[in-house]
Amino acid sequence: MAHIIGMEVMDVRFPTSRELDGSDAMNQDPDYSAAYVVLKADTGPDGYGLAFTIGRGNDVQAAAISALESHVVGKRVPRTAAELAKLSSDLIGDSQFRWLGPEKGVAHMAIGAVVNAAWDLAARHADRPLWRFLAEMTPEEIAGLVDYRYLSDALTEQEAIDILKAAQPGRAERTERLLRHGYRAYTTSPGWLGYSDSKLVRLSEQAVADGFEMIKLKVGGDVEDDVRRMKLARETVGPAIRIAVDANQRWDVTTAIQWMNQLAPYDPYWIEEPTSPDDVLGHAAIAKALQPIKVATGEHVQNRVVFKQMLQAGSLSVLQLDAARVGGVNENVAILLLAAKFGVPVCPHAGGVGLCEMVRHLSMFDYVSVSGSDVDRSIEWVDHLHEHFTDPAIVRDGRYVAPTAPGFSSRMHDATLRRFLFPDGPEWTES
Amino acid sequence: MAHIIGMEVMDVRFPTSRELDGSDAMNQDPDYSAAYVVLKADTGPDGYGLAFTIGRGNDVQAAAISALESHVVGKRVPRTAAELAKLSSDLIGDSQFRWLGPEKGVAHMAIGAVVNAAWDLAARHADRPLWRFLAEMTPEEIAGLVDYRYLSDALTEQEAIDILKAAQPGRAERTERLLRHGYRAYTTSPGWLGYSDSKLVRLSEQAVADGFEMIKLKVGGDVEDDVRRMKLARETVGPAIRIAVDANQRWDVTTAIQWMNQLAPYDPYWIEEPTSPDDVLGHAAIAKALQPIKVATGEHVQNRVVFKQMLQAGSLSVLQLDAARVGGVNENVAILLLAAKFGVPVCPHAGGVGLCEMVRHLSMFDYVSVSGSDVDRSIEWVDHLHEHFTDPAIVRDGRYVAPTAPGFSSRMHDATLRRFLFPDGPEWTES
Repeated sequence: MAHIIGMEVMDVRFPTSRELDGSDAMNQDPDYSAAYVVLKADTGPDGYGLAFTIGRGNDVQAAAISALESHVVGKRVPRTAAELAKLSSDLIGDSQFRWLGPEKGVAHMAIGAVVNAAWDLAARHADRPLWRFLAEMTPEEIAGLVDYRYLSDALTEQEAIDILKAAQPGRAERTERLLRHGYRAYTTSPGWLGYSDSKLVRLSEQAVADGFEMIKLKVGGDVEDDVRRMKLARETVGPAIRIAVDANQRWDVTTAIQWMNQLAPYDPYWIEEPTSPDDVLGHAAIAKALQPIKVATGEHVQNRVVFKQMLQAGSLSVLQLDAARVGGVNENVAILLLAAKFGVPVCPHAGGVGLCEMVRHLSMFDYVSVSGSDVDRSIEWVDHLHEHFTDPAIVRDGRYVAPTAPGFSSRMHDATLRRFLFPDGPEWTES
Repeated sequence: MAHIIGMEVMDVRFPTSRELDGSDAMNQDPDYSAAYVVLKADTGPDGYGLAFTIGRGNDVQAAAISALESHVVGKRVPRTAAELAKLSSDLIGDSQFRWLGPEKGVAHMAIGAVVNAAWDLAARHADRPLWRFLAEMTPEEIAGLVDYRYLSDALTEQEAIDILKAAQPGRAERTERLLRHGYRAYTTSPGWLGYSDSKLVRLSEQAVADGFEMIKLKVGGDVEDDVRRMKLARETVGPAIRIAVDANQRWDVTTAIQWMNQLAPYDPYWIEEPTSPDDVLGHAAIAKALQPIKVATGEHVQNRVVFKQMLQAGSLSVLQLDAARVGGVNENVAILLLAAKFGVPVCPHAGGVGLCEMVRHLSMFDYVSVSGSDVDRSIEWVDHLHEHFTDPAIVRDGRYVAPTAPGFSSRMHDATLRRFLFPDGPEWTES
């Protein structure tokens, strides 16, 4: 019987602010970072997880993960759905630590990192990629992973079981399809705010040539620039390719509506993060005013309670879950079930550090066992930092290849950890 | 010209879990704690602030405060509204640190502690108690303290100025009344869940004898216990004393409504924190179902954006701001203005560590310069840990005495800091 005998936490930062990759209207100079956690097993593989941040404060995020050590070290390596449910609820239920959230921000992302590391550990010990490990559980086991507190006015455990049972027919065929054809991706690479018009055109052309059916542009800096860039992108990709735009929380409600009305002639598919991720009612007002343009959000939505309300209020028509923002796999299962209940497609946020690697498992699990559908669904793809992961995300012909290695794909190379350790790794000490 | 030349951060914890004071349905064993910050000035008094937590994770909270050092050390001691507005917006606007929230949880409470310490510093250098320092600013200066991002669909700067101008007549008289008669308090002391029925009765009688017009009971553990305790309390205090009840986020929406319907015969004045503090729509559903019982919440409401929505949706009819949960004085000014705009009374959350000390300043400022009213308003009073503060909150005849010492009353005694420092102070090392 394997046990967790230690936890190691590292502050790992990549100096991405030296280039303009990743620049948007709110995040001018991110250094993509991970508060990285290793759960060490006495026998068999270790488990790996991370919280993604964009630089300053990554040490605080790492400290929050370290504060959870007593909840996992000394425990058995989880093997079953019930054990993984208990581990998650023990962490969420720490009555003192809970005050720091509850269930939001640094404290909650720390729980998410530890829960994800425990899932990685469990899947590695089961010798299964996480999406298959999850997808092969029974409807009752999957439904039992979720904390229904604060959800029962929108989703009960019985409703979850019904949703999962309805998705049982065809699981084997859908698994087979994923293994053969992967899962649709879209690309954010052409659209960073810092890029010149010529780079925007060149990368948009490249994206279409590479097989992507949707690209995304960052907006929200200057409305005339955005109109020009949107027009240019539309002329470049033609009418058949979807163009999403992303304001990164830049606007108030009225501004969002006015600004988007100026972009509307160029047929934006969705507007992402038009305003505060906390503003359920604001998103609902924007969604109503802008239809048929869709509203998308999620990368900063703090937990299942806010997603629940956004679905209840019609605040979003595309749900962008994030592998490392909420309380880990268990809460993301809750979010996938909520989305299925409300019939809203999930198009995960990715990019950052390791988000593409992790989140593909959740979308593939959703396709096999929850929504059973891939219509209007795709996973964000940003092509950087993958070389630091031992099981990197691969996109081919505009589709994520299904991972087959055991675990949650959240492990970084040892050489990366040494080089990018902050502030003492050579990347930061050698100028 | 005074400058801030250093920041000191301390993890201070009081072993309150050894007694059952502070126990409720969600927080069984709190060790009331403060992540305490000192802004050191090169000349004149230093400034003091804190984030309140309930134990585990207080070190994480302290680390988050330390991460903000570069935003204040080396800067001038703020003297004007404009300087205090800039300091707040510099902290909120840190484009990398922002990812850890945005504007919520550990990261936001850290900003709040630093902003509050800067206000304490400014008020001490101005030789004014904070409530008077604030109240004496012009409407334009006060309105200029607020970050209107994400608020403009509910409150614009011009509307804020109009509210403040409308409150100008009578400012001197209301200041005078506060200095003479203080501000209404209510007491939570009789109602902690861990207390026996006889202690509940004895402390309720004492509360009435002490001049309180409202008491509060914790509920949410067991409905039959709650009915018995509520009946007992009502029989003890009679029909004229208000009894508020507090579920500390224990319920889902349906449970809250059913549970409160069982307490309704004993005339509860408000139900506090019936469900998740993130659930704007859930609170609105509960408020609608339970009227005329009021819904109160706020101590865990993360920021002005959530308060805005709760006011827009009718989720609350009593707003319980907290001095140390949101981004400090500036954001609390925004919240007071929002409450005034929607005509909702503010009854602050207090207790914890230093919350009574600090929050009385905000209510008194509100009375003098924002709402101009004290009708149906009172500040929570919990009579413990005050002896650790150099300018402790004092309640006499059921009313908070107006503080007259300079600052925000957030300074602890040096002997307290030495004794309760975690984990190395003698309180924690001597068993």
